[in-house]
Amino acid sequence: MATSSYSVDISKVRDGVPEALADSVAVEEPLELRLGYTTPDGRATRSISITMRTPGNDHELAAGFLYTEAIIQRAEDIASIETCGPPAPDSGNHNVIRVDLLPEVAVDLGKLQRHFYTTSSCGVCGKTSLDAIRVALAGPIKDVDAQFSRAVLITVPDALRKAQHTFEETGGLHAAAAFNSTGDLITTMEDVGRHNAVDKVVGSLLLNKALPANKLGLMVSGRASFELMQKTLVAGIPLLAAVSAPSSLAVQMAVEFNMSLIGFLRGNTFNIYAGEERIIE
Amino acid sequence: MATSSYSVDISKVRDGVPEALADSVAVEEPLELRLGYTTPDGRATRSISITMRTPGNDHELAAGFLYTEAIIQRAEDIASIETCGPPAPDSGNHNVIRVDLLPEVAVDLGKLQRHFYTTSSCGVCGKTSLDAIRVALAGPIKDVDAQFSRAVLITVPDALRKAQHTFEETGGLHAAAAFNSTGDLITTMEDVGRHNAVDKVVGSLLLNKALPANKLGLMVSGRASFELMQKTLVAGIPLLAAVSAPSSLAVQMAVEFNMSLIGFLRGNTFNIYAGEERIIE
Repeated sequence: MATSSYSVDISKVRDGVPEALADSVAVEEPLELRLGYTTPDGRATRSISITMRTPGNDHELAAGFLYTEAIIQRAEDIASIETCGPPAPDSGNHNVIRVDLLPEVAVDLGKLQRHFYTTSSCGVCGKTSLDAIRVALAGPIKDVDAQFSRAVLITVPDALRKAQHTFEETGGLHAAAAFNSTGDLITTMEDVGRHNAVDKVVGSLLLNKALPANKLGLMVSGRASFELMQKTLVAGIPLLAAVSAPSSLAVQMAVEFNMSLIGFLRGNTFNIYAGEERIIE
Repeated sequence: MATSSYSVDISKVRDGVPEALADSVAVEEPLELRLGYTTPDGRATRSISITMRTPGNDHELAAGFLYTEAIIQRAEDIASIETCGPPAPDSGNHNVIRVDLLPEVAVDLGKLQRHFYTTSSCGVCGKTSLDAIRVALAGPIKDVDAQFSRAVLITVPDALRKAQHTFEETGGLHAAAAFNSTGDLITTMEDVGRHNAVDKVVGSLLLNKALPANKLGLMVSGRASFELMQKTLVAGIPLLAAVSAPSSLAVQMAVEFNMSLIGFLRGNTFNIYAGEERIIE
């Protein structure tokens, strides 16, 4: 069982008076992802990423990362997922995970290097923001047959909070959940990284053969950035709801890809930034 | 002047009733960083990163990124920083910045590829978390001659909030500030990305020849992760204070590198996770 909280001795200062206490913080540890795949020269294994994450649901995280980064297109591309090597001596967590793909799966690792490319391309020069970072990952959401009532939407943050067990203890984790039109949480994940929490949710849906999830919404505990919007789109999820604010690019992307974007979902109140047709009375 | 907020038409739903409103969101746009440097074969230009950031203080962001990623060691390594090419047609922001280094500066871009390496190394397998991600960026903080009183520390979050102009408007930005032992903010920066806000602060200190900043503290609006702790260390700043929770690795790193780490700094209360000797009455 992975450890997601860590005990520390702290000094708590209240009104200028320090007091020694035992406390818990959220665990952050590196996860190395190794990919086994077939090249023209035979079988290869490559370490493709190191993510700082909270241990737990590492299989889902690995699968979700490969899917949202468009390295794989379906759960069936995966032959096996397993932890690898000895556990870390300090925490006992397994911090290396290995995913082997089926021999026939074509892999383009160049997609992972979007942020590190050479000057042969024009780069972002003179392009609109969306053009500059657009990756041909997915087309727009096609239909509006997923709809969510206002009354259901306002119940989702409370449901998410109740499902955040490690947050309760440490106050230090982001959460993400997929939910259906009646407000049931299908899968809930926590992580120190927002993008990891979303990758874990998408990976869980993927491994359960539930993608594209065009009848579900995705709720996140923090803000809605371009990156989270992109992961939502790749999973085929038509609606992203966030407890906090969206960015300009998240709004622009929602409009362009026919997605619904909800922000500041708190109490009885929320803002609809795009895709109001999916929100019903 | 860079645009840091963006107007959107939203539907605000309160108690089930939607109302059309004009609102503002924080701008998120890509910044491409091009580096001009000398190789054994002559002068080269390479696009080394694309960061999703809030426009504004891009010079500081570029300089701070190069410094905290250990591509440069001092402000004097930089020959020039300038925007490059036409502005983005939609926003009018310049989204490409070019940094030229002096001819004699040796550059190791391999440092940027920490998260993308081959299996010739052992990777994180069987190592402790800190060993696995340790980059030989900086030694531990050496002395404790920077000290901060409890009474001063609790004033810093309010000062930071007051300096967050775009947050007031959009609710969507992180902030970071360097402060001195009397609680004055030396430089305050906002960004959709926490790490960008910190890079902007470090870049500003760098360009003002104020690094290493071993008499200052760094305040951040969110959580304290390993990555932020590492940037703080590289800048020589002995204390990181966060409004929210630290992660386990941030605590472990603070202890190992002789840094002070404060979390949950709110109202009259804060937690000291490491380096209590710098906090005085």
